[in-house]
Amino acid sequence: MGFAYFAGANFLLTLVAAILCVCFAPTAAGPGIPEIKAYLNGVDTPNMFGATTLIVKIIGSVGAVSAGLDLGKEGPLVHIGSCIASLLGQGGPDNYRLKWRWLRYFNNDRDRRDLITCGASSGVCAAFRAPVGGVLFALEEVATWWRSALLWRTFFGTAVVVVVLRAFMEICKSGNCGLFGKGGLIMFDVSNVSVRYHAVDIIPVALIGVLGGVLGSLYNHLLHKILRVYNLINEKGKFHKLLLALSVSIFTSVCLYGLPFLARCRPCDPSLPDSSCPTTGRAGNFKQFNCPKDYYNDLATLLLTTNDDAVRNIFSISTPREYEILSLIIFFALYCILGLVTFGIAVPSGLFLPIILMGSAYGRMLGTAMGPYTKIDQGLYAVLGAASLMAGSMRMTVSLCVIFLELTNNLLLLPITMLVLLIAKTVGDCFNPSIYEIILELKGLPFLDAHPEPWMRNITVGELADVKPAVVTLSGIEKVGRIVEILKNTTHNGFPVVDEGVVPPMGSRIGATELHGLVLRAHLVLVLKKKWFLQERRRTEEWEVREKFTSIDLAERGVKIEEVMVTEDEMEMYVDLHPLTNTTPYTVVESISVAKAMVLFRQVGLRHMLILPKYQAAGVSS
Amino acid sequence: MGFAYFAGANFLLTLVAAILCVCFAPTAAGPGIPEIKAYLNGVDTPNMFGATTLIVKIIGSVGAVSAGLDLGKEGPLVHIGSCIASLLGQGGPDNYRLKWRWLRYFNNDRDRRDLITCGASSGVCAAFRAPVGGVLFALEEVATWWRSALLWRTFFGTAVVVVVLRAFMEICKSGNCGLFGKGGLIMFDVSNVSVRYHAVDIIPVALIGVLGGVLGSLYNHLLHKILRVYNLINEKGKFHKLLLALSVSIFTSVCLYGLPFLARCRPCDPSLPDSSCPTTGRAGNFKQFNCPKDYYNDLATLLLTTNDDAVRNIFSISTPREYEILSLIIFFALYCILGLVTFGIAVPSGLFLPIILMGSAYGRMLGTAMGPYTKIDQGLYAVLGAASLMAGSMRMTVSLCVIFLELTNNLLLLPITMLVLLIAKTVGDCFNPSIYEIILELKGLPFLDAHPEPWMRNITVGELADVKPAVVTLSGIEKVGRIVEILKNTTHNGFPVVDEGVVPPMGSRIGATELHGLVLRAHLVLVLKKKWFLQERRRTEEWEVREKFTSIDLAERGVKIEEVMVTEDEMEMYVDLHPLTNTTPYTVVESISVAKAMVLFRQVGLRHMLILPKYQAAGVSS
Repeated sequence: MGFAYFAGANFLLTLVAAILCVCFAPTAAGPGIPEIKAYLNGVDTPNMFGATTLIVKIIGSVGAVSAGLDLGKEGPLVHIGSCIASLLGQGGPDNYRLKWRWLRYFNNDRDRRDLITCGASSGVCAAFRAPVGGVLFALEEVATWWRSALLWRTFFGTAVVVVVLRAFMEICKSGNCGLFGKGGLIMFDVSNVSVRYHAVDIIPVALIGVLGGVLGSLYNHLLHKILRVYNLINEKGKFHKLLLALSVSIFTSVCLYGLPFLARCRPCDPSLPDSSCPTTGRAGNFKQFNCPKDYYNDLATLLLTTNDDAVRNIFSISTPREYEILSLIIFFALYCILGLVTFGIAVPSGLFLPIILMGSAYGRMLGTAMGPYTKIDQGLYAVLGAASLMAGSMRMTVSLCVIFLELTNNLLLLPITMLVLLIAKTVGDCFNPSIYEIILELKGLPFLDAHPEPWMRNITVGELADVKPAVVTLSGIEKVGRIVEILKNTTHNGFPVVDEGVVPPMGSRIGATELHGLVLRAHLVLVLKKKWFLQERRRTEEWEVREKFTSIDLAERGVKIEEVMVTEDEMEMYVDLHPLTNTTPYTVVESISVAKAMVLFRQVGLRHMLILPKYQAAGVSS
Repeated sequence: MGFAYFAGANFLLTLVAAILCVCFAPTAAGPGIPEIKAYLNGVDTPNMFGATTLIVKIIGSVGAVSAGLDLGKEGPLVHIGSCIASLLGQGGPDNYRLKWRWLRYFNNDRDRRDLITCGASSGVCAAFRAPVGGVLFALEEVATWWRSALLWRTFFGTAVVVVVLRAFMEICKSGNCGLFGKGGLIMFDVSNVSVRYHAVDIIPVALIGVLGGVLGSLYNHLLHKILRVYNLINEKGKFHKLLLALSVSIFTSVCLYGLPFLARCRPCDPSLPDSSCPTTGRAGNFKQFNCPKDYYNDLATLLLTTNDDAVRNIFSISTPREYEILSLIIFFALYCILGLVTFGIAVPSGLFLPIILMGSAYGRMLGTAMGPYTKIDQGLYAVLGAASLMAGSMRMTVSLCVIFLELTNNLLLLPITMLVLLIAKTVGDCFNPSIYEIILELKGLPFLDAHPEPWMRNITVGELADVKPAVVTLSGIEKVGRIVEILKNTTHNGFPVVDEGVVPPMGSRIGATELHGLVLRAHLVLVLKKKWFLQERRRTEEWEVREKFTSIDLAERGVKIEEVMVTEDEMEMYVDLHPLTNTTPYTVVESISVAKAMVLFRQVGLRHMLILPKYQAAGVSS
């Protein structure tokens, strides 16, 4: 009967989350962090930051987490933060957008990028109550371009998050907000244990690091395989997606409910106060479950609770004999399986918490095994295990270190945490890339890495341009017909504007080519829509430009070429592209290597780069 | 008699520090952080990272700090870290350089830059025992270019520093290392106080932030004025420099010894254990000084101790009535004066500690004044005051926040620290730039800022190049005489190599100019020194190139044109520059704005950038 209620509730909650995700916003499934990473790198996934995605993500995440699935709310919170930031910057969802004048100032790619970065760091801050960790997460993992102004803007964002969190906790002190704010500002506090370690402790610490690296990369490898299988299943349609999510839910319920029966009942430590062992409520470190009085079931303590409490229980300090090795092995094996099968289903899911649970289990196992030889508490071993698996899978260092510091509030643990993270990251890097890079690759999102590939050094941009679809060049004053034709037949987003046969002012050679600049597809479409045409082939005068074009007109977005109607007569007219052209695009000479051009492209944050021939009409000056 | 010993010892110590700085390494004076910042921005100060500077800095810093001057060891430690890193990378000082084969791999500008960044962050880590703070300090304040690999390299460096520090502390536990390691890994621990704050506490917190911003920018302003006066004095010669340092030392001794007599003797709190009040030794929070038994002198507690202990005493928690307002005012006023007059003298001096002392004084004053209305401990007010003045003067946010977290080990203080830092920085930014930027400007070191100035948008690189000294262009195959002449008469470090009158492979226009690339002055000098001359005007064959030049030859540094002898006959010979040329320099078109070119220059970290004419011989491809 208990199991029926338990499994039924979990099933229903998963159903709600999955139906929302499958039917209304497929982009809300998964953590969303890889897509944010790709966006900040320059690739926009459609519908990623819309209002529907936001709502589905919030409700879906609540459903999925409370369904007891092995997933976290951290990734979804990061995505939620970015969605809110993006919507705030645009003045609302696409259809019901506010038209405030000052919103115009945010309506550009650069500010949207900054806002989404701030949103992501605020999300991490809200998830872990780690303000500095949030800033560093955005800096180390999410953002591609970074500037000093962004550092203190994200910092301001997370400061506000913390103050608001604090205020809510103050209000909820009376206890009428449910689980919220129970843990205080520090989620997994292990500060009240004295950390003592000596030179010999370096061996288990290094061992945890190496294990974390190996297991983390193994996890990445297996998750990759499983996600590929899931992709095949999910491609079969919505029903298959739902079925997959629900089977995982039932499997989770069966395991969580059934496995504690395998564990032996253990007697309570008589030195503990009476009320703390055994407990029957939600919280508490010693769950009675099916045991007689003064006995507790250690596996039920870990499984039959929220994920957050499970972490708290396994991190619990000064309880060296609380868990049997067998229970920890069962716990570890279960969460390895659940962590692999749960991630790919169609509900909002984060990666942080499953990895923390897995890592803390083997950390605590190692701590129990090392018990007689070490002075480090087993709870701290669990913390180190969690940190090592995170580093082994996600390959972050500084941000993870600060997040763990802010999660656990134990500054004296910092030196060994740093060592563990560095070892795990280094070991993991030997085997495969980080989990987010693997997911990015699986989703088919192109990502411009900071380091050029070796082959890029041996090929010039000129050679690369020759084998790619040819660039279409426009004249300074172009026929409307040609523009329409080009826009319909190509997918290029930018076109170089070149004036042929001009006379260089001081040169003697007649007939050189002048590069005027670059014109964007969006602007060309706007020209056609607003019908800024000329009867004859002439340049627009300056007063005409001032009268006709405003930057507000040009900022209009989302017009498509298919929506524009041009008559036969207009096809024969001309457009002067000079006033619409970006006259100072970044350029490279054709003989430069692809590697160097890529560095420029990424460092300056370009979308278009023009390639110039090596041969100049006039002398070179520098 | 006591005063004579006190002042005499201080005088001698200052004398040693100042003589070393004045006679052997003037670059060792001051904190060194601005010069490191400038180096990482691309401007190398001569003798900044040499062995002499390192030794003088170490001994001088020890002398200056133990002389009781109002200066810190933090800045010098950062500089020492960078010096060591630079020397390690080069394989030793210039004259006694190790010739290990693998050292070649570090002997390039990029790795030297990375090493110096790591050294700086390790210095901060050693100074504050703040590993994460050190990494963030290097990231936020010191470095101009940053890449993800650097993040975890600096992190690794600081991890090693912490482990070594820990090991030494373990060894020194028996107490035979003097003052070292007394404070443990956390220098100014305020963790054992419960932090309780409510919505009303936002007012004093905001007040501290505003005060910190105003006082910080005032401090920057006054220090600027005083440093200009000092520059005038220091220019008069070595003797004047010495005299200035020694007068400051005597003034400091007089104030430190004399002022405590102004304070009233206060009775000890009877609730304290007997041995802690009053004390006569070095440590201790209640100094007896000239008072009878069971009385203490609160000003002596702050003044007659090391600077580190002074901070510890003023941060001391749960001692609300320890200091009288009058004593705090005297302390604050004294350290304002000392902080201004001490910084510019010719000894190694850091800025962190003087600012912390000043800030903590007014923070504690505010705390004492707010006593009845607030629940925040006065020691925490002192911490917040110190943080606010740091932010108001140095304008850092995230790194300061983490440094203070690691200094004080109080995570619950983090939200209000963040607010204070943000307010202080914002207020300070309204008045003047950060203290390091002011010092950079005073030292006349050019610094390429991240943001282009507004005028840069209205001028093209072509226009800028026209008003600058003309660029000298070399032909692909150049006469030796012309190269010698150019090297002697110009100071350019790079020369574009241009082949005139070549025929573009697919073009029809005869006589276009081909940009071959950029050749460095250092390589030209090497050519002259190694006499890689040709009898006739011809290109070198590929096998010749392979036989003649090795990259090891080209990596040789420091040869000057004056040292090279070329005979009359050789002057008539030719040099083929093609194999020596960097054929893929970064280029911009002359019509690009200076602002955009500067972004490229700084983001990609260039030293040379070529300007191309707008007019092309062949068509533009992209």
